[in-house]
Amino acid sequence: MILFYTTEIKGNHAVLDKEETRHCTQVLRKKLGDTIQLVDGKGNFYEARIIEISRKACVVEIIKTIANFNSRDFYLHIAIAPTKNMDRLEWFVEKATEIGIDEITPILCQRSERKKLRVDRLEKKALSAMKQSLKATLPIIHELTPFKEAIQQSPDISLRLMAQGGQKNSIKDNYSPNTAVYILIGPEGDFTDTEKEMAFANGFQGVHMGNSRLRTETAGLVACHTINLLNEGQ
Amino acid sequence: MILFYTTEIKGNHAVLDKEETRHCTQVLRKKLGDTIQLVDGKGNFYEARIIEISRKACVVEIIKTIANFNSRDFYLHIAIAPTKNMDRLEWFVEKATEIGIDEITPILCQRSERKKLRVDRLEKKALSAMKQSLKATLPIIHELTPFKEAIQQSPDISLRLMAQGGQKNSIKDNYSPNTAVYILIGPEGDFTDTEKEMAFANGFQGVHMGNSRLRTETAGLVACHTINLLNEGQ
Repeated sequence: MILFYTTEIKGNHAVLDKEETRHCTQVLRKKLGDTIQLVDGKGNFYEARIIEISRKACVVEIIKTIANFNSRDFYLHIAIAPTKNMDRLEWFVEKATEIGIDEITPILCQRSERKKLRVDRLEKKALSAMKQSLKATLPIIHELTPFKEAIQQSPDISLRLMAQGGQKNSIKDNYSPNTAVYILIGPEGDFTDTEKEMAFANGFQGVHMGNSRLRTETAGLVACHTINLLNEGQ
Repeated sequence: MILFYTTEIKGNHAVLDKEETRHCTQVLRKKLGDTIQLVDGKGNFYEARIIEISRKACVVEIIKTIANFNSRDFYLHIAIAPTKNMDRLEWFVEKATEIGIDEITPILCQRSERKKLRVDRLEKKALSAMKQSLKATLPIIHELTPFKEAIQQSPDISLRLMAQGGQKNSIKDNYSPNTAVYILIGPEGDFTDTEKEMAFANGFQGVHMGNSRLRTETAGLVACHTINLLNEGQ
């Protein structure tokens, strides 16, 4: 199944933008009257019939709507220090979206190697991974956020974990399925002591990430998959 | 900690090659008499003192040896169909090595998108990931292997799993910690029915990989991390 994406939906009509139109009509050679599947990034899946094609847009009539399509019974927010190499962070966003994540906050830490970030590039990766993995919900991706603000995000999530070496407990030891969790992943060189204290004061607990020393983006992905795996098959 | 890698070890002396020597003496500015840590890719970790430096080589005297350094109590072999985009397979090798894997077989399937493979590039990624994640053992990486041969590999591993959509059981349902497992990951478009039958006839069982449709390299990594997570904290 190929999913198209649009946010231009009014009543029972939706419009594909230029790029999606090109993919639909030129690459896949869809014609008037053909049925396609689309998602809006907000959890809705649609089956729709093509009723108008131009070079710049494709108009469809919605014939079936499924709300909360492939939705999960848990909520996962990961805040992660961007890597020096932007590819590695983009890769994290792609893979986390494929596996399952709700919210991503790139954080500006004292030891951050990257002080600027093109969030639009991350959003593009997330969009393509959402379609690829047959999901209807785009993760929320925040702008680069100072550490101090990041630890105050998601105040409604009571389980707040911070990845750190030398901790006794793992994510698995702290997490119960079907619940929400907010996890912080630090930069190469770890969070500073000041940052750790600030996090503890804001309700975070330290957790180890296993026996291997992992790169930042790998630690992020391991955290993401751990939560997904612990929820599966409930 | 920075790990160096060498296979040139005789008695209590070891020699770093040109590239490792450059990294050791020029980038990290290590001098005669300094202590460094090295691994041989076969499970041995060494602490050693630099006793000779030239432009092309660095000779060290081993002062401490730890065998089976950071070794695991399980064995994981993953056979995976190479992706069209070589970066994605290299990425899989890097991340799987970081997280923990013993053997990787790139497989040539009927629907494979890639018929040739530069294994040296994969080995380079594995080497760098081994050092990065503080391991002393390099995964075995096989040449591109026809599917029929691949399913006959690792005959001593009795738990043989094949990733497939629509299966009732997951890896988690089949795996017991501290045991060996051999997992097959198919190409985009899945294994063919003939391949599935051949695998079943060779003792493989189908397992699903969760609710998301994952790219090949993501499925490989999810399988790798699932086994590592199920073994942790035993």
